[in-house]
Amino acid sequence: MFVILVYDAGVKRDPKILKICRKYLNWVQNSVFEGELTEGKFKALQKELGRIINKKEDYIIMYTWATLRYSERITLGSPKVEEGFIF
Amino acid sequence: MFVILVYDAGVKRDPKILKICRKYLNWVQNSVFEGELTEGKFKALQKELGRIINKKEDYIIMYTWATLRYSERITLGSPKVEEGFIF
Repeated sequence: MFVILVYDAGVKRDPKILKICRKYLNWVQNSVFEGELTEGKFKALQKELGRIINKKEDYIIMYTWATLRYSERITLGSPKVEEGFIF
Repeated sequence: MFVILVYDAGVKRDPKILKICRKYLNWVQNSVFEGELTEGKFKALQKELGRIINKKEDYIIMYTWATLRYSERITLGSPKVEEGFIF
């Protein structure tokens, strides 16, 4: 499955969330990750994040898609870092 | 089509990008918008954004999906503002 993860976190937890997300997905922009994950890896990611976030102050949205068919990825401007994006 | 828009912009242009995106999509988190758009509206959004961004400093990614089938939206933590999300 293809995953897009966006997060909004308190300053103290931001580096921890970044570190965990980097193990599973590609960093594409501040607080935005994307990539392909198995069901098992996606569950593990959610578990790790669930353990460290502050449920009142932090917010993580994970969009998942079983297929990239019917989709497009359009960019404007220039990426901040070399992207290893999927398509 | 369903659109997820994420952006990373210079401080001077951030409010302008925010204002334009708000006309077309739902704000869900800092620098993250989502919503349903027609092809025409999506083109108009891209045109407006293309006119104001600094192509070297700013970066906008727009993911589009023709259908929400095969997809899920999972959240952890609490949203910063009342969400008007789609599903």
